[in-house]
Amino acid sequence: MRINEHYLTLEESYLFSEIAHRVARYTEAHPEADVIRMGIGDVTLPLCPAVVNALEAAGAEQGKKETFHGYGPEQGYDFLRKAVLEYYRERGISLELADIFIGDGAKSDLGNILDLFHEDNTVLIPDPVYPVYRDTNQMAGRRIQYLNATRENGFLPMPDWNQPADLIYLCSPNNPTGAVYTRDQLEEWVRYANQQGAVLLFDAAYEAFVQDPALPRSIFEIDGAKACAMEFCSLSKTAGFTGMRCGYTVIPGELQRGGVPLQALWLRRQTTKFNGVSYPVQRAAAAVFTPEGMAGCRKNLEVYRQNALLISQTLTDMGLWHVGGVNSPYLWMECPNGMSSWEFFDHLLQGPHIVGTPGSGFGKNGEGFFRLTAFGSPESTREAMARLRESC
Amino acid sequence: MRINEHYLTLEESYLFSEIAHRVARYTEAHPEADVIRMGIGDVTLPLCPAVVNALEAAGAEQGKKETFHGYGPEQGYDFLRKAVLEYYRERGISLELADIFIGDGAKSDLGNILDLFHEDNTVLIPDPVYPVYRDTNQMAGRRIQYLNATRENGFLPMPDWNQPADLIYLCSPNNPTGAVYTRDQLEEWVRYANQQGAVLLFDAAYEAFVQDPALPRSIFEIDGAKACAMEFCSLSKTAGFTGMRCGYTVIPGELQRGGVPLQALWLRRQTTKFNGVSYPVQRAAAAVFTPEGMAGCRKNLEVYRQNALLISQTLTDMGLWHVGGVNSPYLWMECPNGMSSWEFFDHLLQGPHIVGTPGSGFGKNGEGFFRLTAFGSPESTREAMARLRESC
Repeated sequence: MRINEHYLTLEESYLFSEIAHRVARYTEAHPEADVIRMGIGDVTLPLCPAVVNALEAAGAEQGKKETFHGYGPEQGYDFLRKAVLEYYRERGISLELADIFIGDGAKSDLGNILDLFHEDNTVLIPDPVYPVYRDTNQMAGRRIQYLNATRENGFLPMPDWNQPADLIYLCSPNNPTGAVYTRDQLEEWVRYANQQGAVLLFDAAYEAFVQDPALPRSIFEIDGAKACAMEFCSLSKTAGFTGMRCGYTVIPGELQRGGVPLQALWLRRQTTKFNGVSYPVQRAAAAVFTPEGMAGCRKNLEVYRQNALLISQTLTDMGLWHVGGVNSPYLWMECPNGMSSWEFFDHLLQGPHIVGTPGSGFGKNGEGFFRLTAFGSPESTREAMARLRESC
Repeated sequence: MRINEHYLTLEESYLFSEIAHRVARYTEAHPEADVIRMGIGDVTLPLCPAVVNALEAAGAEQGKKETFHGYGPEQGYDFLRKAVLEYYRERGISLELADIFIGDGAKSDLGNILDLFHEDNTVLIPDPVYPVYRDTNQMAGRRIQYLNATRENGFLPMPDWNQPADLIYLCSPNNPTGAVYTRDQLEEWVRYANQQGAVLLFDAAYEAFVQDPALPRSIFEIDGAKACAMEFCSLSKTAGFTGMRCGYTVIPGELQRGGVPLQALWLRRQTTKFNGVSYPVQRAAAAVFTPEGMAGCRKNLEVYRQNALLISQTLTDMGLWHVGGVNSPYLWMECPNGMSSWEFFDHLLQGPHIVGTPGSGFGKNGEGFFRLTAFGSPESTREAMARLRESC
C-alpha cells in the first residue's frame, strides 16, 4: 500500500490560522478594541429575494411526490445550463449547451479538472496566487513554473515565449491582487497558449465586478480562445453563493488535445465522480439569471463596488500604491515605509484595528504587499478608511 | 501537453442508454403498453416534512443579513457532524468528531478518495459491481483484481489469503445484488485487510435497509476495522436525498498508512479541492437525524421494504432463485430457463411490460442474472408482480 506521496510535499498554509491567532492574542489583551475585518474573501450580504423564493419553492417541491426530483443530470439541469448560455449570449459570446457544466463551485472544478491531464505536464502559475492552483498540481506531482507578478508589470504577468507550457492559469479580475487583464493582454495569452498547444485555465469568478466595457469578462471574448481555453465561473461573488455552492465551467467543443475533445473527458469525469448539484440549489441559481435575480444581485454588487472605490480613493489620497478596487472586489497595496507584509499587518491591527491579509501569504512576490477586500458593510468600510487616514 | 491517457481505456457504459433505447423502441411500436420501471436505483417518495421544513427555514435564513451563511467548513458544519456522531453512538459505535466528513454524496467521496493513494496499488473489486469503483481506479491506471461474486458464494465473495491487495471495495447491503455480509464474514475481511496492510473502502449507502440485528450496518461494528477501514455513507436512500446531494465519510484517526493518518490527507484534499456542502442542504440533512426526521424516513423506508418483500415473495413462489430483497432495496435474480440477461430483459419488456436491469451490465459474473429494485410505488410494484406471476 502506497499513499500519494506528493501530499507530503505540500506545505501547510498557516496564513489564515496565523491571522486568527494574532487577532485573538491582540483582542484578548485589548478587549475594548473594535476590530474591523477586511481580510476575508467571503460575502456578507444575504441572497436576494428572487433567489430565496426560488430556493424555498424548490424545497417545497421536494416535499411532494408529484414534484419531487431525485437524481439529476451530472452536468446540471438544462433549465440552469440554458440560463448560463443566455448569460453568455447577452454578452455576444456564442456557446453550445454541451459546453456548459454546472458544478458545486469553481474550487471543486478547478481541482477536479486536473484528472484530465497527465502528471508529466508543465504548469504556469502566477505568483502571488490563489493557493488552490498550486496545491492541486503539487498533489499530482506536476512541474510548476511561476509567472512573476510584480509592481513593475502591474501584477499582470505576460507570457515568456521561450517558456514551454502545458497548463496555464490566469485569473482576471485577479485574486488576490484585483488586477484585470486588458483585451490586448488576453489576446497575447491566447496566441501563446495556441502556439504552445497548452490549455488555458481561465478563472472568471470575479467577472461580475468588471464595469469597464473595454475589459473582457470572459476569455471567450478573445478570438482563438475556444481552441485553447476553459473557463471557471462561480456564483459565489456574483450572487452571494459562497454558502450555497454553485458555479459553472465552460469547455468548448473545439477544445481538443491528443485528438480528444476535453469536453468529453470532463463529462466522463463528472458522470463517474460527481452526482450533480443539489436540485434546490440549481433552482436558486437559475433565479440569479432572471431579471429580478439580476437586479437583486446588481444591488448587492453595487454595495461592494462602492466599498472598493472608497478604499481605492483613500489609498490614492494617502499616496499608497495599489492595484484593484476598480472592476474588482480586491485591493492590493504596497505596504508603506518599506514594511514587510506581516509588519504592516501588526501595524494595522494595533493602530487602526483593521485586519487585512499579508501579501506574502500568496507567494514570494506578495512580500511587501497587502490585500484588502470590499466585502464588508458600507459602515465598517467607511469607519476603517477614516481610521486608516488618521493612523498612517 | 499530455492528457490522462487512462481515460481512453475506459469503456463507455451503454447499459442505461441501451435500456432506454430498447424501451423507447418498444413503446413506440406499442403505445398502449403500460410499462412499469423497476430498473432505476432512484427513490420516488418525497422528502419528509421535518426535512422540508428545515430546508425552507435555512433558505429563509440565507435571505437575511443576520442569519446569512457564507463559506462553511469544508468538512461540514459541526451541527451535522455531531448528529452523525450521535447516529453512530446510538448503534454502539464510538467515533470522534474529526473522523466525520460531510460530503455531497458517496459517489463523489468514493471517486475523490483515490487522490490519497498511489497509482501503484492493487485494487480488489467485486464482480458484479457498482461501476464507479472500477472506472475511478481505471482512470488512475491502478491494477484491478476482481472478486468473483457468484450464485455459489451467494454473491458474497470472501478473501483469497494468497491474493495481495492494497485497496479493497466492499458494499453491503450490496448494489447491485442486494446481498448482505454477515458479521463473521466482515470479521474475516477485516482480518485480511489488516494482514495485508490494505485499506478497506466500505460502502454503507444501503445500511438503513438492514433490519436483522445480527447483520452489521457499519464496518466499525467489527473489531479491528478502525485500523484498516473507511466508510462511505449516503442520505440518498436513507432519507430520499438523491436530488439533494449529502452524505458522510468516516475515516478513523487510527487509520494510518506510510506513517500518515489518512484522515489528515483527506482533510487536506477536501480543504483544497472542495468547499463544503450547501448550507441549506446541511440543515436539511441534520433534520434527518431528529426524532421527527427519523420517523419520517422510517415511514418511507418501510414502503420500499414492503415492495422488496413482495418482489422476493413473488420470486420465491415462482421458484426463481434470488438474493437480496430482505435488508436491501435490491433483488438479484437468476434469469429463468437459462436466458441471458438481455434475453430476459426483452422477455419482461415484451411480456409483462416490466423494465429491469440486465445483470451483465454490472460485470461478467452478472450474465444470466437480473436486478429489480424496490423503489417504485406500492401500486406499480403490486401490478408488476401480478403480471410477472401470469407471464413466466
